[in-house]
This record gives sequence, C-alpha cells and structure tokens, in this order.
Amino acid sequence: MIQSADQICNLTWADGMVAALKRSTLTFDVSTPLGARHAARLGGHRGPTAGFAPGYVQGNLAILPKDLADEFLRFCQLNPKPCPIIGMSEVGSPFIPALGADLDIRTDVPGYRVWKDGEVVDEPADVTAWWRDDLVTFAIGCSFSFEEALIEDGLSIRHIDLDCNVPMYRTNVPCAPAGRFAGPMVVSMRPFKPADAIRAIQITSRFPAVHGAPVHIGHPGQLGISDLAKPDYGDPVPVGSDEIPVFWACGVTPQSVIRAAKPSFAITHAPGKMIVTDMKNSKLAAF
Amino acid sequence: MIQSADQICNLTWADGMVAALKRSTLTFDVSTPLGARHAARLGGHRGPTAGFAPGYVQGNLAILPKDLADEFLRFCQLNPKPCPIIGMSEVGSPFIPALGADLDIRTDVPGYRVWKDGEVVDEPADVTAWWRDDLVTFAIGCSFSFEEALIEDGLSIRHIDLDCNVPMYRTNVPCAPAGRFAGPMVVSMRPFKPADAIRAIQITSRFPAVHGAPVHIGHPGQLGISDLAKPDYGDPVPVGSDEIPVFWACGVTPQSVIRAAKPSFAITHAPGKMIVTDMKNSKLAAF
Repeated sequence: MIQSADQICNLTWADGMVAALKRSTLTFDVSTPLGARHAARLGGHRGPTAGFAPGYVQGNLAILPKDLADEFLRFCQLNPKPCPIIGMSEVGSPFIPALGADLDIRTDVPGYRVWKDGEVVDEPADVTAWWRDDLVTFAIGCSFSFEEALIEDGLSIRHIDLDCNVPMYRTNVPCAPAGRFAGPMVVSMRPFKPADAIRAIQITSRFPAVHGAPVHIGHPGQLGISDLAKPDYGDPVPVGSDEIPVFWACGVTPQSVIRAAKPSFAITHAPGKMIVTDMKNSKLAAF
Repeated sequence: MIQSADQICNLTWADGMVAALKRSTLTFDVSTPLGARHAARLGGHRGPTAGFAPGYVQGNLAILPKDLADEFLRFCQLNPKPCPIIGMSEVGSPFIPALGADLDIRTDVPGYRVWKDGEVVDEPADVTAWWRDDLVTFAIGCSFSFEEALIEDGLSIRHIDLDCNVPMYRTNVPCAPAGRFAGPMVVSMRPFKPADAIRAIQITSRFPAVHGAPVHIGHPGQLGISDLAKPDYGDPVPVGSDEIPVFWACGVTPQSVIRAAKPSFAITHAPGKMIVTDMKNSKLAAF
C-alpha cells in the first residue's frame, strides 16, 4: 500500500507513475466508470460513489481466501436475491475483466475494510499491501442500479429525496446456509403509494442481478420488523398512511453473514464506497 | 334466430344442417376452442364457459352500431387496462378471423344480451335474428387468461377456491371519456399473501391484453371502496389480516359504460358466457 513518497524507492516505474499522479493536480471525470475508478486509484477520492458514472453498475465487494470463497459462492448461489453475483475473479487475481478492462480491485474503491476473525483491523484506501495470492473477489449487485431505473421512470425514492441512507432491517427470514455462511436476510425499505409500488415491482423485476423484485410488501411484522422507525442499519424515513412499505433483499446481507462467520481474513468495501464497473445498468435488464 | 323446426322452411341448406345438428345427440369436446364454440352453436350449451378450452383466450363481447363503435374504439384506446381489445370485426361482419377461422359471433356464445336504449330487451342463445349490417364486434380480454397463468404458477385464487364469482367494485376512478362513453372503472379483487401479491403483479404484468398489472394494492379506501365485504358485482370473499387485497381493472367496465351510454342498440355476452377463441393465452404474454 502506497502511503507516502518515502515508500516509493522500491517500486517499479509504473508504481512510481501512479504515485506521481497521486501527487498531481489531475482531476477525474467521475461521470465515467474509468474516471470514477481513477479518482479512487489516482486522485485520492475517499468518499462515497453515489452519483458517480450514471448508467453504470456499481458493486458491493467481498474478497475471501479460496477455501472460504467456495462456500461463499455456494451461499450466493442459494440466496441470489440478497447476494446477486455480477462478477468474480480468478484465484489471486485482482482483476475482473468482465467488469472493466482497466479495473484493479486493490486500488479502485475509495475505501475498504480489512477483517480478521470477524473484526475490522484496517480501513485503508487501497489494499495492495493486504493482497494475497489465495484471494477471490466477488462483486455483488447493488440497489443503485434499480434505484436509477425507478427514478428514470419518474418514481420518487424517499431516502434519496431526504438525502439520507436507505433504512435497512434484519429480518426473521433465514438465508439458506452454506458451510460457515448463515444468517438472516437483511432488507431495505422504500415506501410508495400503491400505484407506484406496483410500478416499482414491475421495474425491479427486470433487474434480477441487482436484487430484483421486492421480497415483501405491506406487512413488516411478517418479516419480524416491529418498528419501521427503528432500522437496524441506515436511517429511518417516514411512511405515509396512504403508502405501502416495499422491501427488497439488501446487499448488506452478505456483509452481515461474512461478519458472523468470523473468517480468518476478508476484505470488503467500506459502506457506500463501491466498485464502479464498465457494465451498463441497462445490460442487467432481464427483458 | 332459429328457435324451432317450424321456422326452418325459409332457411338455406346450411341453416338446415345447423338446425338438424342442434336436434342431434352429438357431443362436443369443449376442451378445444372449436369444440367450445360448436357446443354453443350446435350443441345447445347455454351455460358459462369457465374451464372450457384451457390455455385459450376467452373474450368479453361488445357489439355496437358503426357510429357508436367509433366512439367505443376510442374509449377502449384511452382505457386499455379495463378495455383491452383482443379482436374487432369489419363493419357488418359476424366474423373475426384473427380469433378463429371458424368463429361466428352470432352463434358461438352460449348466451347474449340485446340492449335497446340501455335496457335488456332479449337474452337469446343466438343473435342471428338481431344481426344488422352496421354492427361492429369488439372482443375484449378477460381475466380468465391471467388467472390461468396465476394458477399455473401455483398461486391460489380465493374466489376459485371458494367456487364463487370474483368480487367486483365500482371505483371513484373515472375512465377517460370518449364521446358518449364515460364512467368509473370497475375493478376485481383477489387477496394474496405479500409474496404471492408480488408474484401476481409480475405474472399479470406479462399480459397487458387481458387487463395486465393490477391498478391498485392495499388501500381500498383510495379507490372509494368502503367495505370489501360488499362488492357491487360478484360475491364477497374473505381477506386475511396477513393478506393484501390486489385490484385489477375489470372487463365489467365496458359493459357498465355501455349501459350508462344507453345506446339505441347493442349486444353483449351474458355474464360468464364468453367467446372462446383460437388464440393461445401464452401468445398474449408480452415477454
């Protein structure tokens, strides 16, 4: 991990170029996927990626050693709604060419969390120093893609209108377990008027690779949610008496399950700081 | 209209054959569309067509004089959810080849209603005697098609399980008016558990030609429905506290609107006695 100019001496020419660019005053066009990745890799951007590269898929990140990765892949296969895999690396490779020719998973996310035995041990801006040749990277679909489709259709999304995080809840619905990975499904909630709820179901049904259709509508108690005003993650949003709360499987589920499994080693993205890919949201539409 | 053997004297050879067949003991395979139509045309079947020709589209019928037909077509075009046109005849023709090569709209429905100035003046089994060369026939999609798709997916439909009619309600939602045709949308209601309600929305969205996606979920009061237990048409069905009432635009809407317009002349099918077509339900799927 390049932390200061003092560490450059042992680096290659290319690494030196990267370090030099980091010290430069270059700006990056974060409206493009490559620009967004370069902003993290070279431009020192350390914030969230919401709003970057409109129209392109952003992914949650889970990086695990090979033996755990096999079990995690099985977990995702069994639980595609909370854990839709949009890309996966070869063992030890920090690249996922299908998501971007120039995409380096070690450097292109604005912030990471490094986990040991279920605890966060580092929150670096680059995980080159933590990289191992047994690591497998999973990119997991994220609700940004379907929210973009909802907004393009003219729907209002409450937490976006209020400029806060989407409310998320741990449910009483167990995921299908796989090896060391098990736990409840986490859901996100967006309230809509009835006609918009129907439209939101239609639109998100087209995007199975980014959580797809809602898993529940209307009766939060059936999910074990006793108070919508008290989300387990994110921020509460008001739900009108003329509205229907609509619940989608949430990408926090795999992070929650990885944390509970207390793997000896894992890397995830820091919340809100996603990997921006070259894949168009529209390409994920099932029809 | 052939009512007895006494009237046969002036008929052609073909009409004579029809009358002879009517008096025969022939049986008809109502599991096929042609068999279902022949049962009405030749076999004296006068009952409902529910369950006939599984897999094939059945249609509501509206037959109007040309000048009214133009306005009614415009009304349907403006209100496709309650009034999805699946077939339309040439002026004066009792045939709609697109719905069946051997389909005669005058004889192939088990029961008709003949209207004058908004009142039912006859409920014949065949409208040959009422036919006019200025009549235009509309076949309008019916919920049988989407109910079949729901059942095939494993969903339970309450009114079918209870062997009663679907509950229908006049709403406070006005249709877009066209000429003399105007009035509120009528909806049908089917209760489902939340996950099944989501699935029902997905499935019926695929069938825009047979009412398509629901128009409302969850808040009947917003449609002006004060008591689900008191439908305006059909029978009440129980709605569980863990369920969501799901409302679809209903094919009773065009009949209700035609009745209110008090046309000088009109013919419709009698309730539950539909025109059975050669069109497969699956052909109506939008994707």
